[in-house]
Amino acid sequence: MAQTPKNIAIIGSGLVGSLLAIYLRKKGHTVTVFDRRPDIRTIKFSGRSINLAMSNRGWRSLEQVGLEAKIKEIAIPLDKRAMHVNDKPVYFQKYGKEGEAIWSISRGILNKRMIDLAEEEGTEFRFNEKVWDIDLPTARLYTGESEKGEWKEYQYDLVFGCDGAFSRVRHKMQRQSRFDYSQDFIDVGYKELTIPANEDGTHKLDKNSFHIWPRGQFMLIAMPNVDGSFTCTLFLPFEGEVSFESIATEDDARAFFKEYFPNVRKDIEDLTKDFFNNPTSAMVTMKCYPWTYWNKVALIGDSAHAIVPFYGQGMNAGFEDIYMLDKLMDAHGDDWDTIFSTYQKERKPNADAIAELSYRNFVEMSSKTADPKFLLQKKIEKHFAAKHPEKWVPVYSRVTFSERPYAEALAIGDQQEKIMKEVMGMPHIEEKWDSQEVEHKILELLGE
Amino acid sequence: MAQTPKNIAIIGSGLVGSLLAIYLRKKGHTVTVFDRRPDIRTIKFSGRSINLAMSNRGWRSLEQVGLEAKIKEIAIPLDKRAMHVNDKPVYFQKYGKEGEAIWSISRGILNKRMIDLAEEEGTEFRFNEKVWDIDLPTARLYTGESEKGEWKEYQYDLVFGCDGAFSRVRHKMQRQSRFDYSQDFIDVGYKELTIPANEDGTHKLDKNSFHIWPRGQFMLIAMPNVDGSFTCTLFLPFEGEVSFESIATEDDARAFFKEYFPNVRKDIEDLTKDFFNNPTSAMVTMKCYPWTYWNKVALIGDSAHAIVPFYGQGMNAGFEDIYMLDKLMDAHGDDWDTIFSTYQKERKPNADAIAELSYRNFVEMSSKTADPKFLLQKKIEKHFAAKHPEKWVPVYSRVTFSERPYAEALAIGDQQEKIMKEVMGMPHIEEKWDSQEVEHKILELLGE
Repeated sequence: MAQTPKNIAIIGSGLVGSLLAIYLRKKGHTVTVFDRRPDIRTIKFSGRSINLAMSNRGWRSLEQVGLEAKIKEIAIPLDKRAMHVNDKPVYFQKYGKEGEAIWSISRGILNKRMIDLAEEEGTEFRFNEKVWDIDLPTARLYTGESEKGEWKEYQYDLVFGCDGAFSRVRHKMQRQSRFDYSQDFIDVGYKELTIPANEDGTHKLDKNSFHIWPRGQFMLIAMPNVDGSFTCTLFLPFEGEVSFESIATEDDARAFFKEYFPNVRKDIEDLTKDFFNNPTSAMVTMKCYPWTYWNKVALIGDSAHAIVPFYGQGMNAGFEDIYMLDKLMDAHGDDWDTIFSTYQKERKPNADAIAELSYRNFVEMSSKTADPKFLLQKKIEKHFAAKHPEKWVPVYSRVTFSERPYAEALAIGDQQEKIMKEVMGMPHIEEKWDSQEVEHKILELLGE
Repeated sequence: MAQTPKNIAIIGSGLVGSLLAIYLRKKGHTVTVFDRRPDIRTIKFSGRSINLAMSNRGWRSLEQVGLEAKIKEIAIPLDKRAMHVNDKPVYFQKYGKEGEAIWSISRGILNKRMIDLAEEEGTEFRFNEKVWDIDLPTARLYTGESEKGEWKEYQYDLVFGCDGAFSRVRHKMQRQSRFDYSQDFIDVGYKELTIPANEDGTHKLDKNSFHIWPRGQFMLIAMPNVDGSFTCTLFLPFEGEVSFESIATEDDARAFFKEYFPNVRKDIEDLTKDFFNNPTSAMVTMKCYPWTYWNKVALIGDSAHAIVPFYGQGMNAGFEDIYMLDKLMDAHGDDWDTIFSTYQKERKPNADAIAELSYRNFVEMSSKTADPKFLLQKKIEKHFAAKHPEKWVPVYSRVTFSERPYAEALAIGDQQEKIMKEVMGMPHIEEKWDSQEVEHKILELLGE
């Protein structure tokens, strides 16, 4: 169904804001994007970012507007994890089936490209212009130099808040009665570090792997960039015996890397300098509801549902919001009330599901990877899935390599967990984990 | 331990703000209370309030500063519930043991009295002066006519946020990184109504009872005032078949009361007028952490932990915050860092516990009071508690008539629930609920 062209404002020129602009331009709307920050294409972007892992949901959303091929040019497929344990050879774990991969992309490079593409489609960008207030019922925006200074007023038909976890648009909605909201920080922070390319431009580590140095309560990861470098992220508790707080001097930092990351530390560029120059960032799960105000204002992406990054799904979930919104625009035309109310009702359970899955992955990585019972369970699941691939699709694959709803992946994952609890309770499971008895038990519990 | 006098600001002149002012004056501090609203003593206060139920924790906090007797003058003891079911005689349920009661107080009358008392102690009140911003590290306040107008700056040593569930002080703390926060509204709203006194000044209903007209998904309650009137509260879903939304006209309102509250409706003053003139209010559970900023700023009462009113503990919990803070001031003197950090660590689990208990009471009242299994369970508990009063203190009594921590009441309540789950699973429990077998089973499960 065609839509009457509207005059639309998008707050936030990040990944979700620029992709939404492209979608809305393709529908014939006039689109202005406001951002309080300068044009990312004109500044050095780095220092506090984790590389993106684009997976099926993200690609589908790009493909819908013909951008998949263009973005694949700046992405590198990763078909496996490379686990780095001290004094052991690197160990590789395939992510999925043959041909299944997640794609590493630098956030800065992708964002610049997306803004270029949105501009080519005819989007107007207003950088360095901060939105201080929004009148929700009239979709009026107020921008200016400072909160107390003079403000400029803009009138739109619709406003989309794509301004991230600390959204100003949501902040305004939040002050209404009956607006549910939560923000929960985890006790772990992260810091960006870099492994530069070799002199000939090649990568210092296998470029088609997601590199992990797991160390129990903390870990280092590295994801490749197209220029031969790797963006590394150190996840570490804020406080405690081994923590950001406990690393106060350059000597502390050197000793920490020498003890825990002896093999990679020489590859990291300006290790101690970057460690203290780059900020330590916090991670939050943010949930809220409703996501829309009448037929006037809607939140998309992190502004509606910010999640911790341990499933690599933040951007994918935001892009999927847009894909779903687009389907609703096709179905309901100018009926924005129905578009918005259906959008929030359909997406909310899925956003909650991926928030839960992401948080569980954090807990799993922090506390369970050293637990022999947990490792045995994973081994049994893998063994069974290899024999019966159609009967046991792991949750990771359902989230990453499928386009089925996140809520379904969570529900099936919970069923699998229940089955495995019974299996792990079988006497002498340690000895007979790969036996026919166990296999038949799982088949029985699956209702086969 | 004595304290060096400080210059202290309290934001909010409600019950918690004025009691805290009295405590701090008794310690020799200079105290200024800011409130954006006018002096409650100069205006008509009503229309959106539920009467207060002062119980042990509240009285202990008042007694500590010698106010118990003065406040009892404006309070009425309620030693029982009066249940009004249509076509049945009123049924009374004692709250606790002989002499145990909760006390009904009008919020407006209490607040006026508390401000008088705080003034007598030498507190300065600045009404009609809204605090727009707080610089947390320096304890500087900014007030003014409007957010964008000119602001006046004040410098204090310490600032206490006693400004309720929608606290401006917390709002400022909330914008820091790593501040956990949630607000969850329930789907039920409430509206104040009034039953006036008889012409001779006496009460129209039994004055020493908490009156309840339970109707499944909704209910009416009434609590007495010293002037012979009752403050009534109608709790009703916002949306749905029988809801605030479905009562749109005076005829709807009349039909609603005629059907569900035929016996009391004639006693309610200006029923249809008040129904549409008084606002429909929402109820929220608000949690956050931390509650303090360095040794400069602390949240007390609803600003730190707003709860739904179904346990009658909101004010009691806020007053207990002050009582505990006072103990810490005695113990740690000028060490405000320790006072604040101990205060939040000790109080947070108790605030979470009473939030949980209050929410459970709401669920119980909305959905379980018609469930025969639930009613049987309550009957068994009561039967057992009557025989073994020292072995089975109900959670209600632990919360209301004790000063032990809320978290303890919740934990013991969960243990009791677990025991009752086993008891309810006994075969033919309906027939043998008052048998020796059941009694012995409970004793056994209690580890006797």
